[in-house]
Amino acid sequence: MEEERLDFEDIGFAKVDHGRAERCGWPEVIYGAGKTAEQIIAILRSLMAHDRKDSLLVTRCDVEKADLVQAAVPDAEYDATAQMLYLRRGGEACGCIAVLCAGTSDLPVAEEAALTAELMGAHVERAYDVGVAGIHRLLAQQPLLDRAKAVIVVAGMEGALGSVVGGLTKAPVIAVPTSVGYGANLGGISALLSMLNSCAAGMAVVNIDNGFGAGYMAAVINAQSVGQP
Amino acid sequence: MEEERLDFEDIGFAKVDHGRAERCGWPEVIYGAGKTAEQIIAILRSLMAHDRKDSLLVTRCDVEKADLVQAAVPDAEYDATAQMLYLRRGGEACGCIAVLCAGTSDLPVAEEAALTAELMGAHVERAYDVGVAGIHRLLAQQPLLDRAKAVIVVAGMEGALGSVVGGLTKAPVIAVPTSVGYGANLGGISALLSMLNSCAAGMAVVNIDNGFGAGYMAAVINAQSVGQP
Amino acid sequence: MEEERLDFEDIGFAKVDHGRAERCGWPEVIYGAGKTAEQIIAILRSLMAHDRKDSLLVTRCDVEKADLVQAAVPDAEYDATAQMLYLRRGGEACGCIAVLCAGTSDLPVAEEAALTAELMGAHVERAYDVGVAGIHRLLAQQPLLDRAKAVIVVAGMEGALGSVVGGLTKAPVIAVPTSVGYGANLGGISALLSMLNSCAAGMAVVNIDNGFGAGYMAAVINAQSVGQP
Amino acid sequence: MEEERLDFEDIGFAKVDHGRAERCGWPEVIYGAGKTAEQIIAILRSLMAHDRKDSLLVTRCDVEKADLVQAAVPDAEYDATAQMLYLRRGGEACGCIAVLCAGTSDLPVAEEAALTAELMGAHVERAYDVGVAGIHRLLAQQPLLDRAKAVIVVAGMEGALGSVVGGLTKAPVIAVPTSVGYGANLGGISALLSMLNSCAAGMAVVNIDNGFGAGYMAAVINAQSVGQP
Amino acid sequence: MEEERLDFEDIGFAKVDHGRAERCGWPEVIYGAGKTAEQIIAILRSLMAHDRKDSLLVTRCDVEKADLVQAAVPDAEYDATAQMLYLRRGGEACGCIAVLCAGTSDLPVAEEAALTAELMGAHVERAYDVGVAGIHRLLAQQPLLDRAKAVIVVAGMEGALGSVVGGLTKAPVIAVPTSVGYGANLGGISALLSMLNSCAAGMAVVNIDNGFGAGYMAAVINAQSVGQP
Amino acid sequence: MEEERLDFEDIGFAKVDHGRAERCGWPEVIYGAGKTAEQIIAILRSLMAHDRKDSLLVTRCDVEKADLVQAAVPDAEYDATAQMLYLRRGGEACGCIAVLCAGTSDLPVAEEAALTAELMGAHVERAYDVGVAGIHRLLAQQPLLDRAKAVIVVAGMEGALGSVVGGLTKAPVIAVPTSVGYGANLGGISALLSMLNSCAAGMAVVNIDNGFGAGYMAAVINAQSVGQP
Amino acid sequence: MEEERLDFEDIGFAKVDHGRAERCGWPEVIYGAGKTAEQIIAILRSLMAHDRKDSLLVTRCDVEKADLVQAAVPDAEYDATAQMLYLRRGGEACGCIAVLCAGTSDLPVAEEAALTAELMGAHVERAYDVGVAGIHRLLAQQPLLDRAKAVIVVAGMEGALGSVVGGLTKAPVIAVPTSVGYGANLGGISALLSMLNSCAAGMAVVNIDNGFGAGYMAAVINAQSVGQP
Amino acid sequence: MEEERLDFEDIGFAKVDHGRAERCGWPEVIYGAGKTAEQIIAILRSLMAHDRKDSLLVTRCDVEKADLVQAAVPDAEYDATAQMLYLRRGGEACGCIAVLCAGTSDLPVAEEAALTAELMGAHVERAYDVGVAGIHRLLAQQPLLDRAKAVIVVAGMEGALGSVVGGLTKAPVIAVPTSVGYGANLGGISALLSMLNSCAAGMAVVNIDNGFGAGYMAAVINAQSVGQP
Repeated sequence: MEEERLDFEDIGFAKVDHGRAERCGWPEVIYGAGKTAEQIIAILRSLMAHDRKDSLLVTRCDVEKADLVQAAVPDAEYDATAQMLYLRRGGEACGCIAVLCAGTSDLPVAEEAALTAELMGAHVERAYDVGVAGIHRLLAQQPLLDRAKAVIVVAGMEGALGSVVGGLTKAPVIAVPTSVGYGANLGGISALLSMLNSCAAGMAVVNIDNGFGAGYMAAVINAQSVGQP
Repeated sequence: MEEERLDFEDIGFAKVDHGRAERCGWPEVIYGAGKTAEQIIAILRSLMAHDRKDSLLVTRCDVEKADLVQAAVPDAEYDATAQMLYLRRGGEACGCIAVLCAGTSDLPVAEEAALTAELMGAHVERAYDVGVAGIHRLLAQQPLLDRAKAVIVVAGMEGALGSVVGGLTKAPVIAVPTSVGYGANLGGISALLSMLNSCAAGMAVVNIDNGFGAGYMAAVINAQSVGQP
Repeated sequence: MEEERLDFEDIGFAKVDHGRAERCGWPEVIYGAGKTAEQIIAILRSLMAHDRKDSLLVTRCDVEKADLVQAAVPDAEYDATAQMLYLRRGGEACGCIAVLCAGTSDLPVAEEAALTAELMGAHVERAYDVGVAGIHRLLAQQPLLDRAKAVIVVAGMEGALGSVVGGLTKAPVIAVPTSVGYGANLGGISALLSMLNSCAAGMAVVNIDNGFGAGYMAAVINAQSVGQP
Repeated sequence: MEEERLDFEDIGFAKVDHGRAERCGWPEVIYGAGKTAEQIIAILRSLMAHDRKDSLLVTRCDVEKADLVQAAVPDAEYDATAQMLYLRRGGEACGCIAVLCAGTSDLPVAEEAALTAELMGAHVERAYDVGVAGIHRLLAQQPLLDRAKAVIVVAGMEGALGSVVGGLTKAPVIAVPTSVGYGANLGGISALLSMLNSCAAGMAVVNIDNGFGAGYMAAVINAQSVGQP
Repeated sequence: MEEERLDFEDIGFAKVDHGRAERCGWPEVIYGAGKTAEQIIAILRSLMAHDRKDSLLVTRCDVEKADLVQAAVPDAEYDATAQMLYLRRGGEACGCIAVLCAGTSDLPVAEEAALTAELMGAHVERAYDVGVAGIHRLLAQQPLLDRAKAVIVVAGMEGALGSVVGGLTKAPVIAVPTSVGYGANLGGISALLSMLNSCAAGMAVVNIDNGFGAGYMAAVINAQSVGQP
Repeated sequence: MEEERLDFEDIGFAKVDHGRAERCGWPEVIYGAGKTAEQIIAILRSLMAHDRKDSLLVTRCDVEKADLVQAAVPDAEYDATAQMLYLRRGGEACGCIAVLCAGTSDLPVAEEAALTAELMGAHVERAYDVGVAGIHRLLAQQPLLDRAKAVIVVAGMEGALGSVVGGLTKAPVIAVPTSVGYGANLGGISALLSMLNSCAAGMAVVNIDNGFGAGYMAAVINAQSVGQP
Repeated sequence: MEEERLDFEDIGFAKVDHGRAERCGWPEVIYGAGKTAEQIIAILRSLMAHDRKDSLLVTRCDVEKADLVQAAVPDAEYDATAQMLYLRRGGEACGCIAVLCAGTSDLPVAEEAALTAELMGAHVERAYDVGVAGIHRLLAQQPLLDRAKAVIVVAGMEGALGSVVGGLTKAPVIAVPTSVGYGANLGGISALLSMLNSCAAGMAVVNIDNGFGAGYMAAVINAQSVGQP
Repeated sequence: MEEERLDFEDIGFAKVDHGRAERCGWPEVIYGAGKTAEQIIAILRSLMAHDRKDSLLVTRCDVEKADLVQAAVPDAEYDATAQMLYLRRGGEACGCIAVLCAGTSDLPVAEEAALTAELMGAHVERAYDVGVAGIHRLLAQQPLLDRAKAVIVVAGMEGALGSVVGGLTKAPVIAVPTSVGYGANLGGISALLSMLNSCAAGMAVVNIDNGFGAGYMAAVINAQSVGQP
């Protein structure tokens, strides 16, 4: 097993980490932002040749690259809102992850989180546009907050949603600040700071606009909590 | 009247602005932080000689200075929580200002706001420790939020209280970020940014820990709203 | 009434807050920046179906989106300077709000503030290009500053106008920093900090370039001050 | 149950949130930093009168306050390294949480995390001084990383430990940046940014020096993962 | 002359720059902050032995160091407000420099500027506490602004005074931001940014609290303007 | 004269400050960045009708606007490097201003400074590409540094040139940081901080890329120093 | 020799520093970012006329400029990944420099470093995509780390690679933060801070994305270490 | 050898890295700032028992801790300026490292660098107080700059010294920004940014006030350059 953990394939511009699934429970996910379609295809093929049971993900992949990759890898699907390309594998969804977002503009990040968690085997329920300026819309989600094994909160501007949710659920909360807003939002820094300084316990934070990271973390917690290996 | 507006007394280290009340509706308030007790006494006496109907305020005045000033100006009272020294004047309190704070540590700033507003003639009602992690404590204040002519929200850490309150009241909201917290609170910058980026309308913000500024602004709005000159 | 306060319509990508007017005195305003024309139209129709007496506003709406919305909602008007789309309703303008700006480049933000206040029922008077480098231009506005129930000050670069105005009026001042300038203006942060640190009392601040927020706040204060519900 | 969720006791300077345990699974934890010993005692007594089965915690409590509280509440214990005061309750520890720290100077924060998790019922294993400059010390912890249900990583300076650990474990990782270091560490901001930008998936971050927050989050995940309610 | 320009004395911990006066028109000024009394005495003696006609200055010298230096150098005088130690030399004061400050708390920085300029041979006139919240106090200084050859403006908080003065004088303006204020003043950064972004032309800025630098610059301009070499 | 000082023309979107020349010694300069060609033309015509002896300047004017303005105001000239449009007036150049820049990329800012000073009547001498990495190129400019009445130093990246020049001249130095560089230059903030913290006396700083401000300040000093009114 | 050190050619917009090679061991390198193709050609020709034995480099040169320069200087070669134009000269490569990068997106910066070092005479070995999330890929490079005379580490996001490498090699490490990442990476500031705060000794840092600077520094160290002059 | 590389001793609060010397060429150096005297003694003894040929260093050790450690480890020496405790071992000094500092206040950091390098076997030559405001003092050090194998430049305030030195030497330059200065020096950030943005090649930077890091890096380069293993 030790060997399997340390496996990787050197394809020149990349060293594909085939031990990742063994070590971390999930194969390498491709960060598409700084890569050409050709590079993505090559890494994807290396992963496909090695792992046949888990979904494979490419994040931050724009539609132009997606078209090129899909031409070469016909099984790949694409979600334009989440900017994700993926090969869907695996069986029935388990557990329950709640994905909440504060406003309509936060949708792309929320969808990246939701889709990531789904591809990693989680049952996901969405509650969008439940920002704190109309708190009753959030309070109406109490049943969802009660049955969730993990809650993802996506919010830009002042990012206040995280703290309120933290006070309404037993589940661990993953907060995702978004860059939605203008001026003193500082590209998402304002929401990030809010979430880090939350007066609510049981919450941790990922990078600005990092829906993927939140979905991954929540999926791991959810799987553990329902006894998935 | 023009002349009265432009009146000031030059006492060497200061030019006491006696036209302030005529121009702005309220005499000069002494910022105690960078002044000696002697300087405060001199300015106070200049103001007392000129204005006999309005309360006079010294903000950010520690107890040592306060003792020295009170020895020289026996009518002066002192509030140790708000760090304010004052001569209380004027008649019955009017209108209604709600002062809310998120946690016990925000009390000194909240009291500076409340006391300022009271000294400027407002009726003030306090609701402390109503932070968003236990949102039901805030929702229980709805009647107060309904009758207030102005609402002051004092909060540190992530400063989320402002946005939630903004969605629950018709009154204008003055938000005061505090330096309460640690680490990524950046001495209050986190709460300040939250409040500036609020998704709730009808809210404006003053400097970190500036309870005085919020109390003053709220008092002006409150007085106007109940037809005080 | 409690129920009316908690009313909302779930249209999938949004939960339109129909209780807003009951709770806050004004229906939900649509933040156009992160929405498609289709989303704006759907939310607008939901609001139109529910509220028939108040003006409806869409802020940060560029001309392309505006054209599409106007095709679907013929009553909608558009102001290209303020980048606002709106349905104008309501009767005679009341009270007096002064909107001052420091320079010609601050006009779009000043117009967003002025138009918002007008749509919310306020009588608005503009005094543009009264920056402090030619202070006599501002001093000439004293009569306006005397009759205003609220003053909006819009300024970029060093944002000094707020403090000077604060010393010339009895009315509450809402300061709007703008991103006008270059280099060390840091996209408006310089003006924002100036306004937050103002030596003048009776002033509060909104986000950079947030003309809407200032207009809204001023309109609420103005209405209260002339006895509007 | 709804009522129990919304229970709170108003003791003047605080509104003790007795619904917290029902809503969030754990009673209110007292943030000691901004409170007097008297205030802590009063809140503690209110909590003790209401909750008899869970441990009660006071964080950021210095030794002087601890002495005063212990005089009034004899059952309270104190940990000087973690700066925590607590009433220990509950039965056997369950699951496994790994607490790693990069260097000896990070110990107080690591102990705050470990003690919090233990008081919340978790079995905790510590591996201290496993910083990345001597990576073999970390690799020697592989068995611990394999059996943990949650991993807490505490590191200051460049905060690199989080990413390396993230690549070695299947468990969710909670990263705690510390203020250890000098100069360009910016009081912990450097480590915080490192952890937020981690190239490893399955990791989320709490505030600088927030050992408590990490311990709480990990304890919730751990309990869920071993089927605790 | 070339040689004189390049003259320096190596006294181990310092290389006293005796060519400074020849190159820059004024001997080296000692920055007292990071030096022991012994180091200051040694450098001062080296300067005294070399230059007999210009005033010698030690800035940022606290009273303890000053006492020790004065014991060793009996001719040295000390100004506790400006925190400056000096040997006064030279003849009649020439020209006119106006030193303005916004509030009483800015006095120490203003005095450092004024005293520096005086020691460098300038006639200095002070106008203190002329902040913009009472603009008439500043307008009353118009005759001074008209006769000055250089104007120094000292202000903390929002630093707005510089721009207003810049619009009222023909003389070059040197602006000195101070660290006076709290919260979002960021230790003087707010005032510094204001002054750098001034809409008034003919103004330049020195470091926060750098009264010395402003006094030096103004003295050079003043001397040049009245035909001093 | 008082009246002349307070003269202005209200043309709707602007209040042209015709008292500026009387108060400040130079007519209003038009900041072209936030204005349309039509607005520039209208302000220019207002100034031309009022002032017939001084050069008129429009800064930050791109070539498209310049073409439109020149079509309407045939006397206007344009400098594409300095991005300035102007009407040149006045007689012989007087005094001596040295304009130094560190590298070729700083040329546009240096030219804005030089041209401004020339249009305001100064004799200007340029020494470009004298950055400190080849210090002998700067030392070769000693004669220029000796005869200058004011020195302008333009530098990006680390902005070190200012301090070195400050140690080589008797003249006052105006430092202009530029945004030249990348990464940790932070858009010019690095050079700005360097210049503000200079160990050399007799130097003051203007905004990033503000060649105009430096040229204006230097021109005022130069004129004063050669006895120009 | 002194004269040779101080040699430069004034070509108007630039003063080409022909003494650089004598003083610093290497001729001036042209920073292409702020220069026109014409300016680059002129400086290159001046350098070519003076130096016939060393490679000549133009950094940050985009393909459009490169085409124009190559048309005029046929010997010039171009590398599109590194964005470098160069004239290759010199003999056999000596020593050993290891260039490591964390991910595929860091390739352009790594190639700028590698090519610079090669053109300056170093033997370079590359190991790309060895980021810390799959630490075994890095550990596999131990033989390279053992034989290198200097190690260049290129990493974005959290920049953790530097510290790990610092603990695995005897050679001096030059760390290059890159702007790869998003959100809280702050354009490379996060990686920069990580590297500056490294717990590993024997490492120093260059500017964000400054592959050239790292390659240059490493080449100097490598040459010295193998006894090259 | 592999085993020796991976050797460490677990003493509870620390895992002393005995493989460091084998891997990195030098034993672990103790960072004294966050450790008690007892912890330092324990780690020191563990190192002493394992390594008998290299000097052992404790950095950032104040005099109180030093006294306690010296009582327990009589061979330990202490340098109060550099705040370093050490056991000196090894033979004759080799090569040449130049340590330059800009001003007297930078001495403690410069001495930390110099002493570190000396203890690691380097011959060190100091040139202090050679700041750029008197550039001739630096130019007088040319012979030292010519014979050095590595140059350390220590400077606070604007940190300009690094760039000038970089243009005068063939040796690699390690720049150390210091926190010397006030106001906009931002605790050393200003000098740090200057050095990172240097226009001179062949220079890299360490953390603010990190004399140790610079001394270590320079010692490694120096040793390599004179053929030491």
